[in-house]
Amino acid sequence: MSNSNLSKLPYKGCRDLFPKDKRVQDFLFETFSDVAKLFGFESYDGPLLEPIELYLAKSGQELINEQIYSFVDRGERTVAIRPEMTPTLARMVAQVHREVPLPLRWFSIPNLMRYERPQKGRLREHWQFNCDIFSLESPYGEIEIFQLLVEVFKRFGANRNHFAIHFNSRELVDGLAKNYLHLSSEQSYAFYKLIDRSKKIGQKEFKKELLAYAGGDTNKQSFLENYFALNSLESLSPFISKYQLACPRLASFLELIQKEEFSLLKPFLVYDPTIVRGLDYYTGLVFEVFNLHPDHNRALCGGGAYDNLLGIFNEKPLGGIGFGLGDVTLKDFLECHQLLPDFSKSKTQVLVAALDEKNSSFIPIIANQLRANHISCDVLWGEQKTKKIFNYSDHKGHQMIILLGDSNTPQGELLVKKTKDRSHVTCPIDGDWIQQVKTGLLS
Amino acid sequence: MSNSNLSKLPYKGCRDLFPKDKRVQDFLFETFSDVAKLFGFESYDGPLLEPIELYLAKSGQELINEQIYSFVDRGERTVAIRPEMTPTLARMVAQVHREVPLPLRWFSIPNLMRYERPQKGRLREHWQFNCDIFSLESPYGEIEIFQLLVEVFKRFGANRNHFAIHFNSRELVDGLAKNYLHLSSEQSYAFYKLIDRSKKIGQKEFKKELLAYAGGDTNKQSFLENYFALNSLESLSPFISKYQLACPRLASFLELIQKEEFSLLKPFLVYDPTIVRGLDYYTGLVFEVFNLHPDHNRALCGGGAYDNLLGIFNEKPLGGIGFGLGDVTLKDFLECHQLLPDFSKSKTQVLVAALDEKNSSFIPIIANQLRANHISCDVLWGEQKTKKIFNYSDHKGHQMIILLGDSNTPQGELLVKKTKDRSHVTCPIDGDWIQQVKTGLLS
Repeated sequence: MSNSNLSKLPYKGCRDLFPKDKRVQDFLFETFSDVAKLFGFESYDGPLLEPIELYLAKSGQELINEQIYSFVDRGERTVAIRPEMTPTLARMVAQVHREVPLPLRWFSIPNLMRYERPQKGRLREHWQFNCDIFSLESPYGEIEIFQLLVEVFKRFGANRNHFAIHFNSRELVDGLAKNYLHLSSEQSYAFYKLIDRSKKIGQKEFKKELLAYAGGDTNKQSFLENYFALNSLESLSPFISKYQLACPRLASFLELIQKEEFSLLKPFLVYDPTIVRGLDYYTGLVFEVFNLHPDHNRALCGGGAYDNLLGIFNEKPLGGIGFGLGDVTLKDFLECHQLLPDFSKSKTQVLVAALDEKNSSFIPIIANQLRANHISCDVLWGEQKTKKIFNYSDHKGHQMIILLGDSNTPQGELLVKKTKDRSHVTCPIDGDWIQQVKTGLLS
Repeated sequence: MSNSNLSKLPYKGCRDLFPKDKRVQDFLFETFSDVAKLFGFESYDGPLLEPIELYLAKSGQELINEQIYSFVDRGERTVAIRPEMTPTLARMVAQVHREVPLPLRWFSIPNLMRYERPQKGRLREHWQFNCDIFSLESPYGEIEIFQLLVEVFKRFGANRNHFAIHFNSRELVDGLAKNYLHLSSEQSYAFYKLIDRSKKIGQKEFKKELLAYAGGDTNKQSFLENYFALNSLESLSPFISKYQLACPRLASFLELIQKEEFSLLKPFLVYDPTIVRGLDYYTGLVFEVFNLHPDHNRALCGGGAYDNLLGIFNEKPLGGIGFGLGDVTLKDFLECHQLLPDFSKSKTQVLVAALDEKNSSFIPIIANQLRANHISCDVLWGEQKTKKIFNYSDHKGHQMIILLGDSNTPQGELLVKKTKDRSHVTCPIDGDWIQQVKTGLLS
């Protein structure tokens, strides 16, 4: 059995979630799930493995070659560990969308794997909160997804100083690339990749590469300069009018978001011409949630609206909108804004232990009664030393200790001790000590 | 994008969990988690992938070759998708056990993959509830794990007619193989494999193969016959005495379980000489939970006590006990006993919709207010037809509908309708309708 070379550390880019780490993750997941359910979303899940064709059909060769964990199974099928949830979602929705009343509101929190060089905020394995609405007419779907995202962040204690939703419109960007700059589809692809990199490569380099797309045409140059100068909801409509760009979906969104009933949502929205999500299948609004911390100014979450996700299954077009929010980037966000509560201690409420052998036979009876009253407890079985009991309790963070066989406690009684203020009472073992515990846990 | 050969079905042996299926799984997982926490267990998780050496060290070549999903990553490491959680658990405990007060009580609900021929109760991907206690002195660890298992099944509504915990002792079986039958370690391995198969191959075939191990020695024959005739806790002690078998851990368990304070646990325990879990690393008690349904008499869950799980990391021995309970077999168990509640409808409480465009602007305001009161709601945006609203609501199973713009409702009021009895009240839109909703949801 022994193997001295066996590492105790996790596989590169993956995490060991010890209880203190798992409590953080559970807190994130419970918040995701609570908010999604509040908005009428239903939870789903799918397989860990999918045939490689599913990802090839959606994302093309590039992502597959560079980033996916794929292998040939024993039945000679090439399969992949899911790098994202959307293709699985599309496959599942393609099975049922004709039989159920729309819209579908679905969410999931799957574990995903991508072959990345591990770095801050990016690991090979992460979990991702996915929400999608299928067939909710634009621009209501956009509004609802934004409301849900804002509510998730608010639940974590974040406000307008911490995050913003940066959005753009593929309808607008696709239109200006095709109809105004007259780019071919290969050129558009390179153009979108350049825009995707704009925040990384610096203003000067970006501008240089960008102006190449104007091909020396000064009208196109000033158009591009005007476009990338856009930085607010208010600046967008005059730009669209000036250049007579046709983007009816964006226009109806801009009209709706101005209404009084969305006044709570609007302050979180920032128009951002550099969001394109070019490698993806989006056709309508696209967006990213940005961390506004000056030292961690990066995207946490991306999404958008799509017209034809089911096309790969030869299904008729069914529009939708969705996003993915990863647990690693979100945890970094909460930590940098000091919004993450302390999860270093367990939530187990009570410890039951005995200082002598004779009294230890009461331990299971007391533990049973606590559990029957929905009070969580650890037990230390048999006879224990005081030091061991208090060490164990300090480490796990119990709120109370029930101690049997303490020499200062009368025969036939137990001691109920609050760890916070070290106060205690004694009660007959066959008496109503459960009431003392309940009161103590509340105070 | 289009690919007419792309299947809509999940990869072989994996499941698409649509919302109605995911609600069942969530119900299982929440019950697992609730009970584990009640017993002081802390949640953990680990990587989806582990280096293959971890499984080779623990389980040997056989499991690896036949059942594991493994492949070579881009860094030339051979990795495996976790087929079970125990090796990961051992690796994690090996990192921390010297620094934390013991016992550790840990649980996890990971997704696992094994390369199996899919059949009833066995899929390639499943989720498994794992509970382990490290370093709780025997026989208390055994008692506590059994208590926890019984509590889990009770929570699901199961009782003594539905399930039993069949247990045996590796201390006893290892001793009789080695010291009484004088088997070599290869012979023991084959002997345990035979016993593992005993329930499948039929009495006659089993007896034939079994008696080969007596090698014509009539004493050994009658010993084996007596051993396999054991069928109760009570029959075990006389057998141990008669053959003077040394198994102090089993003896102390048998003594403890007779005590008054464990009288609620004892009726669920059945001594079963055919449980050996031979391919595993157990050294103490071994057990399986059996479904007692006559048509589905099979094991749901297996586990046992081990002395040296950390040995593969060259750590000093640290005893423990644990089990794994899969979601597929558990769901089958609950279904065959009709213990699974109906999860066909969503839990979303309220639907908000409007019958005319003008009133639809109140939808987001009403939805906000419901959500601020922790009431989950779906909205149908814009102007809707009555039939669409009621179809949607029937499908999702909302308890109430808030309807705006109904022609029979006075101007400026909304209609709050209970779907169960079709009763309704009207309220001013700016009035205290939230109270009507709260009252309606409770009744």
